[in-house]
Amino acid sequence: MSGDAASGPPVRFTRDQGLAIITLDAPSRGNAVSLAMAEQLGDAVRLCHDDRDVRAVLIQATGKTFCAGGDLDEFRRERGDRGRAIEAIANRFHEVESLLLKLDVPVVTAVQGAAAGAGLMLALLGDVILSSDRATFVPAFARLGLSADGGSTWVLPRLIGTRRATEWLLTGRTLDADQALAWGLVSEVCSVEDLAERAAMIAQKLAMGPTPAFRSIKRLIGRSLGGDFDSQAVRETRAIAHHAETPNGEEGISALLERRGPRFASATVELSDGD
Amino acid sequence: MSGDAASGPPVRFTRDQGLAIITLDAPSRGNAVSLAMAEQLGDAVRLCHDDRDVRAVLIQATGKTFCAGGDLDEFRRERGDRGRAIEAIANRFHEVESLLLKLDVPVVTAVQGAAAGAGLMLALLGDVILSSDRATFVPAFARLGLSADGGSTWVLPRLIGTRRATEWLLTGRTLDADQALAWGLVSEVCSVEDLAERAAMIAQKLAMGPTPAFRSIKRLIGRSLGGDFDSQAVRETRAIAHHAETPNGEEGISALLERRGPRFASATVELSDGD
Amino acid sequence: MSGDAASGPPVRFTRDQGLAIITLDAPSRGNAVSLAMAEQLGDAVRLCHDDRDVRAVLIQATGKTFCAGGDLDEFRRERGDRGRAIEAIANRFHEVESLLLKLDVPVVTAVQGAAAGAGLMLALLGDVILSSDRATFVPAFARLGLSADGGSTWVLPRLIGTRRATEWLLTGRTLDADQALAWGLVSEVCSVEDLAERAAMIAQKLAMGPTPAFRSIKRLIGRSLGGDFDSQAVRETRAIAHHAETPNGEEGISALLERRGPRFASATVELSDGD
Repeated sequence: MSGDAASGPPVRFTRDQGLAIITLDAPSRGNAVSLAMAEQLGDAVRLCHDDRDVRAVLIQATGKTFCAGGDLDEFRRERGDRGRAIEAIANRFHEVESLLLKLDVPVVTAVQGAAAGAGLMLALLGDVILSSDRATFVPAFARLGLSADGGSTWVLPRLIGTRRATEWLLTGRTLDADQALAWGLVSEVCSVEDLAERAAMIAQKLAMGPTPAFRSIKRLIGRSLGGDFDSQAVRETRAIAHHAETPNGEEGISALLERRGPRFASATVELSDGD
Repeated sequence: MSGDAASGPPVRFTRDQGLAIITLDAPSRGNAVSLAMAEQLGDAVRLCHDDRDVRAVLIQATGKTFCAGGDLDEFRRERGDRGRAIEAIANRFHEVESLLLKLDVPVVTAVQGAAAGAGLMLALLGDVILSSDRATFVPAFARLGLSADGGSTWVLPRLIGTRRATEWLLTGRTLDADQALAWGLVSEVCSVEDLAERAAMIAQKLAMGPTPAFRSIKRLIGRSLGGDFDSQAVRETRAIAHHAETPNGEEGISALLERRGPRFASATVELSDGD
Repeated sequence: MSGDAASGPPVRFTRDQGLAIITLDAPSRGNAVSLAMAEQLGDAVRLCHDDRDVRAVLIQATGKTFCAGGDLDEFRRERGDRGRAIEAIANRFHEVESLLLKLDVPVVTAVQGAAAGAGLMLALLGDVILSSDRATFVPAFARLGLSADGGSTWVLPRLIGTRRATEWLLTGRTLDADQALAWGLVSEVCSVEDLAERAAMIAQKLAMGPTPAFRSIKRLIGRSLGGDFDSQAVRETRAIAHHAETPNGEEGISALLERRGPRFASATVELSDGD
């Protein structure tokens, strides 16, 4: 049951055994991004940064819509000063996205329904993006007479190339789950009935993974595009030589040689990998 | 009927209700890029830049071939100084492409037949690229014993990644329309009979769109790859807050809330979006 | 027959009519990357750089596995100092990859079986990547509790985008040949029986191509992502004007006008294309 009935907070946050779950929970408003929702999302992601016991994050939503984008009612109410209202929400939401992009544990998003505008961009910030067969994906900015927001002009060219990004933001056409999969926007499509379970399973498995190595991988990829092969290779060597000396590296190599599944610990005392 | 019969100009240019149409019209020569064609293309694209009433551009061609690439007859004629002849056409054609890449209104290309060499690159410079089921796509440079031109070494890695770009330019293999769609080179494939109508419809729809917002979107994407998320987000916020205050933003938000289609104006007095 | 029986060298290297063939030949060890294999690979690629008669390179492997990745037995043996053992192999292997990335003649890889970890990255460094229908592709680093190596954090974002690269390196899931094709990781899939012949045919054809133009194409693409369109266009013009004046340019243009196949020479005296 969702907490939306009256005036519950629009975002729920739970932690259990290394897995943090962020749930958009204002289904009667299509989980639209109000100022309150943007602020609570920011608080939740900040907790994921600060809590070293968090080893994976799952972002999901209740109701039929994953997230309808910026809260138009809120824009409307500020009739005299719509620009300033949008600016306030955009600033807060960009901060959420910036924090998510810097998070170095795995992030899974589970998109059960429509993801529009800022909601589209939130869905696409996962490292693993699960889509139900009822999900739809639409930028929606231009049909409002507005320029593209939600980091879309930064994220989309990196996901689908400059040409497809431009086309999609100009035409604003709606993609269904299969088209989103064909474009490489999402990782996998499953039935809407199976989505929550499948997403939880993948997120839990990632939360049991070699967290310090995952952190290195995400940090290394974050530095990939700026530099040349040789300097990236130096960073890779430093990181892998470090992890090879940790209990997780010992366990992973032993498990493979012994043909069994590895059991990884979240190093409580974590040595720097030098990166 | 095309104007190619005797010695008509190889490029036709028309403007109607915000839509500029550039037509390659030398079908008996496969619309090959001669010096004259490159110069007339440049003039046409320059007019699109200068005329603020142009809100979208459609590039199409007459005859069976979209564009056969550089005019080999012209290269041949200059036997003693082939390098200089190619250099002259390449310089002029690169200028056309550079101007097209900087154009901040939507560009649609309609590829009815073979697009080869420089003609391939012209086809791929659209924001929306429509392909007939008879179109073919081939780089063609290496089979002439030549290095890749037409901006292909800049554009292709950005469209299809470095590996595929290298492979395609080295092997020079011909892709049909379905393969081009699978690679994400084109937006959509339709029958050759429907192509002109479909392309005109899409281009007209874009010409009726929120032109100032489109301009911001294309300028924002143009700055995407160079910078980091946070500075791009600042630019996005500035632009969207600006557009929210314009009549188009008012109209777009109202139309959505009233569940009707929006009617956008091309702002004649356009405030800067600060970008 | 492979030279693996007792203690033959793990890498074989042959040259014939412009085609260099590098064969991983330690099938009983899954062609795992030992220090000896990394060193011999480096020697072979260095020969391809130095020998101007080499016009294309084919990388293939014997046995059921293309390359199982870093040699775990070697890591294991160095129990006391596993980090240093991995560091030594990683450094040597990164050097091989760096040399391959700088090679300006076409490189074909033929992947007959599993390509894992460093072996995956070697497979993906071809310009043309042929996969048998029995090949599998797996990053494998994280399941060992290790961070990603083999240049994967540099190469994969450029091949499949940042999001897919992150997902793949975190989940470490195994792709079969068809999935690899759908992701654009490989150029073509054929039956395991046909692979060697098909790969040799493509590599030989590339070795008969306009080698100096190929060199320009690969160098131009290497400079693509760093710069803007206009400066890349200047480099393209300089290169194509140069090649148009060479016998290969003459032959290619003549052959097309005469509707016959071209016969390209590897210029023994090669003028600089100014690039």
